[in-house]
Amino acid sequence: MKNDILISKIEDLGLSAAEGYKTAGISGGIKNCKKDLAILYSEYDTAAAGVFTQNIVQAAPVHLCRAHLSNPIRAIVINSGNANACTGDQGRKDASLMAEKTAAALGIKSGQVMVCSTGVIGVPLPIDKVTAGIDKISSLLGRGASKDLDSATAIMTTDTTVKRSAYRVVLPSGLEFKIGGMAKGSGMICPNMATMLAFLTTDVKIERTLLQSIFAEAADASFNSITVDGDTSTNDTALLLANGASGIEIHAGSPLLPYFKDVLNRVCCDLALQIVRDGEGITKLLKLTISRAQDREGARVMARSILNSPLVKTAFYGEDANWGRIIAALGYAGVDFDPEKVDIFIGPYQVAKNGGAVPFSESAMKVYLAGHDLDIFITLNQGLAEVTSWGTDLSHEYININSNYRT
Amino acid sequence: MKNDILISKIEDLGLSAAEGYKTAGISGGIKNCKKDLAILYSEYDTAAAGVFTQNIVQAAPVHLCRAHLSNPIRAIVINSGNANACTGDQGRKDASLMAEKTAAALGIKSGQVMVCSTGVIGVPLPIDKVTAGIDKISSLLGRGASKDLDSATAIMTTDTTVKRSAYRVVLPSGLEFKIGGMAKGSGMICPNMATMLAFLTTDVKIERTLLQSIFAEAADASFNSITVDGDTSTNDTALLLANGASGIEIHAGSPLLPYFKDVLNRVCCDLALQIVRDGEGITKLLKLTISRAQDREGARVMARSILNSPLVKTAFYGEDANWGRIIAALGYAGVDFDPEKVDIFIGPYQVAKNGGAVPFSESAMKVYLAGHDLDIFITLNQGLAEVTSWGTDLSHEYININSNYRT
Repeated sequence: MKNDILISKIEDLGLSAAEGYKTAGISGGIKNCKKDLAILYSEYDTAAAGVFTQNIVQAAPVHLCRAHLSNPIRAIVINSGNANACTGDQGRKDASLMAEKTAAALGIKSGQVMVCSTGVIGVPLPIDKVTAGIDKISSLLGRGASKDLDSATAIMTTDTTVKRSAYRVVLPSGLEFKIGGMAKGSGMICPNMATMLAFLTTDVKIERTLLQSIFAEAADASFNSITVDGDTSTNDTALLLANGASGIEIHAGSPLLPYFKDVLNRVCCDLALQIVRDGEGITKLLKLTISRAQDREGARVMARSILNSPLVKTAFYGEDANWGRIIAALGYAGVDFDPEKVDIFIGPYQVAKNGGAVPFSESAMKVYLAGHDLDIFITLNQGLAEVTSWGTDLSHEYININSNYRT
Repeated sequence: MKNDILISKIEDLGLSAAEGYKTAGISGGIKNCKKDLAILYSEYDTAAAGVFTQNIVQAAPVHLCRAHLSNPIRAIVINSGNANACTGDQGRKDASLMAEKTAAALGIKSGQVMVCSTGVIGVPLPIDKVTAGIDKISSLLGRGASKDLDSATAIMTTDTTVKRSAYRVVLPSGLEFKIGGMAKGSGMICPNMATMLAFLTTDVKIERTLLQSIFAEAADASFNSITVDGDTSTNDTALLLANGASGIEIHAGSPLLPYFKDVLNRVCCDLALQIVRDGEGITKLLKLTISRAQDREGARVMARSILNSPLVKTAFYGEDANWGRIIAALGYAGVDFDPEKVDIFIGPYQVAKNGGAVPFSESAMKVYLAGHDLDIFITLNQGLAEVTSWGTDLSHEYININSNYRT
């Protein structure tokens, strides 16, 4: 069967690649003349899965999404320019009103609408502009590259690139299903702080709790495995809708399940890497693999410790193979391991063995570190778990972007 | 009694302020022509207390110090220029040899010697230079400002200032005791990463386990309450020796105990603040107080989360009163609290109340943020615990220092 299933990337499509979805993105006047409001609409009821920020400070729309998650979702409304975070009761009312207005415009129930916001925090949403935009946008819904570009543009904040991804899976029967999506985030920053948002759609039919467990796993290996500056926003949200429009059903024992997981992972990783590549001030993309760890959870904590270390990040910015900073960040992650079993490679070159120095060619390393995409490979030699995470260096430009926002 | 006890700062003295201690610092050739080797010697057996790095990767001298801690310590030998970290069996042998050579030179036992190293990691110690230096230095031991300056200079790495502090406590009887010390650290960085080291001496007589508990508490409120970049080194060590030379004995029920604690706190905070003020690339000293927290441990974790946030640090570098970044960093610290009870002040100005925005004068704030020493005050309004921590901003100069080390 494997040889007869064709998986292919679809260029230029995102949210509306899968059947039964329409989208639109417009300028609603929240930001100055830029697109700032997007709607996703499904012609059919969907099963929805979601992962949300672990920050204790959660914006009003995050609370709304959690509450609506088990409903048969039909639409997502998203604004940029204002995060509706730290806005108290008014914020909760505004998020509910966004759901109600979207439902009214689309002829669905407000419990079938998800709401997401990103942008400045602590400032009340300009709700009149938002609701006026919702009234206008509903008549613009459609499919195709241009519509997907509009909505992917409308959710950007400090992003410098639009982020979309879509894949098609054709079965031997000729039937096909698709998974597509869009994302934003480029540091967890702007205006006052920003947010990672990701929205995915598929046209398979799948039971909600199964979808949730698959999506949580895919998000762990993608959106939760990237870091720009370690700051987790109040609004981080990733949502996946499945509407069954392809006529293909996937269940727990289905032979198609591994393919669905595989393609979902591809779309999630594709979007996650687009976010890192657009990381604020990035001059190096760091791909870190920690192998032979005791367990994945511990390895993930270690990877985050290394990729968030200002000393590791500035060393790579300076093109310095400073493995001492790497092993030190490994050591303060709070996970137990034996330092004298650790091997470290930077690109093809081993720099540490059994926790101690290994001679390497400084000139060859210099050439390698001058590249943009760099690999760090750490073998703990104490278990069988492996994780891969992605991060960025820490550059002068990062400081420029984040210190000069308001002044 | 309180009015008759006089506490005063002693200028220009450090390690040898207290009676019965001698010190010296020389250039042993580990670093290029700079002072790099220091010895502290006590004429009497001491009770020793110590706090050490929580990093799982611990340098050989840290292991030696832990093993010797309960012995009647007589000397500490310290080198800069090489951390003797990630150096395996050879590193352990070298640390032991440093203790043995120091003991032989001073006529004491090797178990009575503590060893500390700071500098480049993963490179074997130039042990011949170190031992030759020890032979030479033992005849130079003495007391006074010049000797204390020599040893405080010899432990510097990227430090730009010498760090010493000493206090005298005169009792109504005319008897007096002293506490003094020196420290180094200016980021946890250089050469490959550096280290916070602190050495304190006192001439009171005090039982070892009591001294350890008092010192651990003082270190928590000082050395463990500062952060420059959140990177914990493999060599961080703070040691306190008490030799009884003043003739004053302090025990658990002693009326002098609160005074001893108070002065020890002053010396520790004085040294800790000197370290932060010399933080790499610092343009702002941030003093953060979190009050009305449920417990001190949680509040400390929250404070660290805020002071290590690149977004908070770059905002202060940019002189931007960005309380959204502060509350977000509070939220992802992993400690439970109610965001809608949080009040935040920057300097004298309230910027958030009940987790939401409060209007403040941008022009007055601009003037305040142009200063060097800035206060952030957060009231959680959910308990009675309070902690104060100190940190730095994140500047272009930090990136310069840490990205350009080897190139």
